[in-house]
Amino acid sequence: MLETRIRRPSLLDRIVTPQQAASLIKDGMIIGMSGFTRAGDAKAVPIAMAERAKTDPFRITLITGASLGHDIDRMLTETHVLARRIPFQSDATLRAAINRGEVMFIDQHLSETVEHLRSNQLGPIDYAVIEAAAITEDGGIVPSTSIGNSASFAILAKKIIVEINLSQPAELEGLHDIYIPTKRPSRVPIPVVSCESRVGFPYVPIDPEKIAAIVVTDEKDSFSTVEAADADTTAIAGHLIRFLEQEVAKGRLDLTLQPLQAGIGTIANSVLTGLAQGPFHHLRMYSEVLQDSTFDLFDAGKLTFASGSSITLSAACGERVFGRFDKYKDKLVLRPQEISNHPEVIRRLGVIGINTALEVDIYGNVNSTHVNGTHMMNGIGGSGDFARNAYLSIFVSKSVAKGGRLSSVVPMVPHVDHTEHDVDIIVTENGLADLRELAPRERAREIIAHCAHPDFRERLADYFERACARGGQTPHLLEEAFSWHERSRQTGTMRLA
Amino acid sequence: MLETRIRRPSLLDRIVTPQQAASLIKDGMIIGMSGFTRAGDAKAVPIAMAERAKTDPFRITLITGASLGHDIDRMLTETHVLARRIPFQSDATLRAAINRGEVMFIDQHLSETVEHLRSNQLGPIDYAVIEAAAITEDGGIVPSTSIGNSASFAILAKKIIVEINLSQPAELEGLHDIYIPTKRPSRVPIPVVSCESRVGFPYVPIDPEKIAAIVVTDEKDSFSTVEAADADTTAIAGHLIRFLEQEVAKGRLDLTLQPLQAGIGTIANSVLTGLAQGPFHHLRMYSEVLQDSTFDLFDAGKLTFASGSSITLSAACGERVFGRFDKYKDKLVLRPQEISNHPEVIRRLGVIGINTALEVDIYGNVNSTHVNGTHMMNGIGGSGDFARNAYLSIFVSKSVAKGGRLSSVVPMVPHVDHTEHDVDIIVTENGLADLRELAPRERAREIIAHCAHPDFRERLADYFERACARGGQTPHLLEEAFSWHERSRQTGTMRLA
Repeated sequence: MLETRIRRPSLLDRIVTPQQAASLIKDGMIIGMSGFTRAGDAKAVPIAMAERAKTDPFRITLITGASLGHDIDRMLTETHVLARRIPFQSDATLRAAINRGEVMFIDQHLSETVEHLRSNQLGPIDYAVIEAAAITEDGGIVPSTSIGNSASFAILAKKIIVEINLSQPAELEGLHDIYIPTKRPSRVPIPVVSCESRVGFPYVPIDPEKIAAIVVTDEKDSFSTVEAADADTTAIAGHLIRFLEQEVAKGRLDLTLQPLQAGIGTIANSVLTGLAQGPFHHLRMYSEVLQDSTFDLFDAGKLTFASGSSITLSAACGERVFGRFDKYKDKLVLRPQEISNHPEVIRRLGVIGINTALEVDIYGNVNSTHVNGTHMMNGIGGSGDFARNAYLSIFVSKSVAKGGRLSSVVPMVPHVDHTEHDVDIIVTENGLADLRELAPRERAREIIAHCAHPDFRERLADYFERACARGGQTPHLLEEAFSWHERSRQTGTMRLA
Repeated sequence: MLETRIRRPSLLDRIVTPQQAASLIKDGMIIGMSGFTRAGDAKAVPIAMAERAKTDPFRITLITGASLGHDIDRMLTETHVLARRIPFQSDATLRAAINRGEVMFIDQHLSETVEHLRSNQLGPIDYAVIEAAAITEDGGIVPSTSIGNSASFAILAKKIIVEINLSQPAELEGLHDIYIPTKRPSRVPIPVVSCESRVGFPYVPIDPEKIAAIVVTDEKDSFSTVEAADADTTAIAGHLIRFLEQEVAKGRLDLTLQPLQAGIGTIANSVLTGLAQGPFHHLRMYSEVLQDSTFDLFDAGKLTFASGSSITLSAACGERVFGRFDKYKDKLVLRPQEISNHPEVIRRLGVIGINTALEVDIYGNVNSTHVNGTHMMNGIGGSGDFARNAYLSIFVSKSVAKGGRLSSVVPMVPHVDHTEHDVDIIVTENGLADLRELAPRERAREIIAHCAHPDFRERLADYFERACARGGQTPHLLEEAFSWHERSRQTGTMRLA
């Protein structure tokens, strides 16, 4: 069994325990770990690291693809291993430590981290800790359910620790397309010209001598916690279907649309699934995380191909997909997140990007990350890579949060992740605002009329009108712009008494 | 003479007066005009349009490359011709009308406007009004000192009005490289792989039957109003030279650096000229506007090649350059602004982008456009195209404005054009903050210590410390974040009494 997973015999004697592998990690090191939205994370070594730190304290810079499963970020936070964390996380314990200023969190566009590593602006990586489905005869690393930044971590690291996960289907081999851009300024065009393009290797080519240790594991990925569609997400999907139908009627799109991207989380996932109710067909995805919605669309006969950087599924969907992986494999490709999220490719393909906003302001600036403008939720992730370069940049949100106490449409967002230039369409359960080619004052009227919750609409319109009286391209009353957030911070609600 | 400029004889009988050409423009039309930062603007027809509107009112949507010369935006504003204006301007009269809400101004990334046109999300263009140095035997349009969006305007417009400008040197022919990306989703990679790449035609290929009128003019481009370097810009250049020398010492760059981009205006222009004082050599530019600094670097023997979308020079520099254009021509190429500013190419080449900030906040978010967060200056221009995709994204600013009354480093910017993710380096005359791989709290300490003016430093540090006490990834006191701007709005100064 193990010989089919580690096909280079000379590497078999590098198998060690997680504890032995963890002991290689020293204080002050920069560690690159696999894992993207819970999928394909290293599972044994980081937990052994946390265990070790209880008696042998050490601190590291941890760089990943995106968020990890298995409470790894929690355990590494509780044992004070994390000094610095890059480029994304979604763990409640880590989040709290970040917001206390105890862990330095560098929130980055997900396409950019390995550019920084490759140009020696970040790093060098001391150890890459990478989950693999197999190691080839040449020592090539076959990733598991995500690639994320793993390929560049392995290529650029001084040494590599591989976790061979026997619970990951051997059939994952052949799914991956590992293409690494050449160095700048002599880089050539990235040859991806369609969702289906295969332009690289099915494994990460490395010098096998860099493999310092191999750990064998047998634990599944953490499941996605995505929730089912509800009336609001169904309404959002309905508005979006009608809008896209109108675009087809105007001749701007045909019923196959353009390649689709959907951000992580319940709302974007539900909206994407909801597209199955529209008249569209032969859809393709060029996205980062392939969630349940991807496979719902496959099973509905609506989707022909999906390109991503990870596969993150709920328990039920995971059973369905990995139980019959042959049914899906030739319609899938996983890429390094640098390529799945690359501005060059997203712009070339003309992706329709659907991302989730925490809140939007009346001019269409989007806050994706900071509660009340100060406290980090997860990070910007890939939303900026897609929103900036998309053919259509769509943001979805429910119009209220916290049981209706908070409006998701506010006078001014207290943290900007996406500027008005990068936001074409905003959809809430109340309606859709088409902001293309509109000036800020026109955008405000659309957003207030179509997206805001009726309970907050009048106050937004009142703010806007009083701001307009003071003039400007983007009218505001600075002394009042954050009064809704200030009320929320102090009283827990944006509603008036 | 005219036969060498209009080399397709059948077109000679389409020569009309500016007034006749202007009479073709009807109320409600969408007009695409040449012109990028004053260079290569149509000069006679728009002035005749303004004149006509005094007795025959009409309103249009005007799309250009960027800003125009010859007070055209002023005249079209004063005669109420402009209903909508896209994607950039820099005229005081138009700016005031925009801020009164009388002209709808859609402020766009300069690389994106023609994507919107090509996909029918904007347009169609009724008339393209394009200045040309010549028309070829095939009817191809040879642009003059800028390309901007002219090529796509001409290709996509229903009809074209050409202004043949005899004052533009005939030697401009051969300078241009017109490459138009194919339609999405079947677009192929843009083949530009170096500053020097020539991948298209030296003229805009169009159906000559679309040429509705030709106007012959003889007026030079408006001169750039760029000012001379002063002690502050010299200090900024000095800080930047020392930083780049350190990057070379660390092996991240060599002395030829990476392709350079400099934003428009006095500060970025002076800083680029200042690089001549460093040890760098064989520099190349991949920029949008080639200003005096480009030719200063050529004359200093520091620059080997420059790619741009326009050439905008002061009177003295213009005489020097166009008096001996043979000396420079083979080291220059002009491209459509879609290509000069294309995310794909900027990221591929690894451009070092140097852009000007109106103000920055303590976390490194940049406001490039809105005075006091509400009133438009010029527009975001190409700064976002470059800052997002650059190898190094550098923002320069003097640390104070308005005779020292305003700090350019503020607690929170009231308008965000560039988020902290897209800002690597901030330089003022006081010093340089290297923000790469730093968390927001670390960024704040660097910016306050190195960039802020000493008169404002203590108040910024005090704000930051009190905000940190309240917690968060990006600490703020929302009720106080804009107090500096509010004081400025009411009293004209951010200083305490």
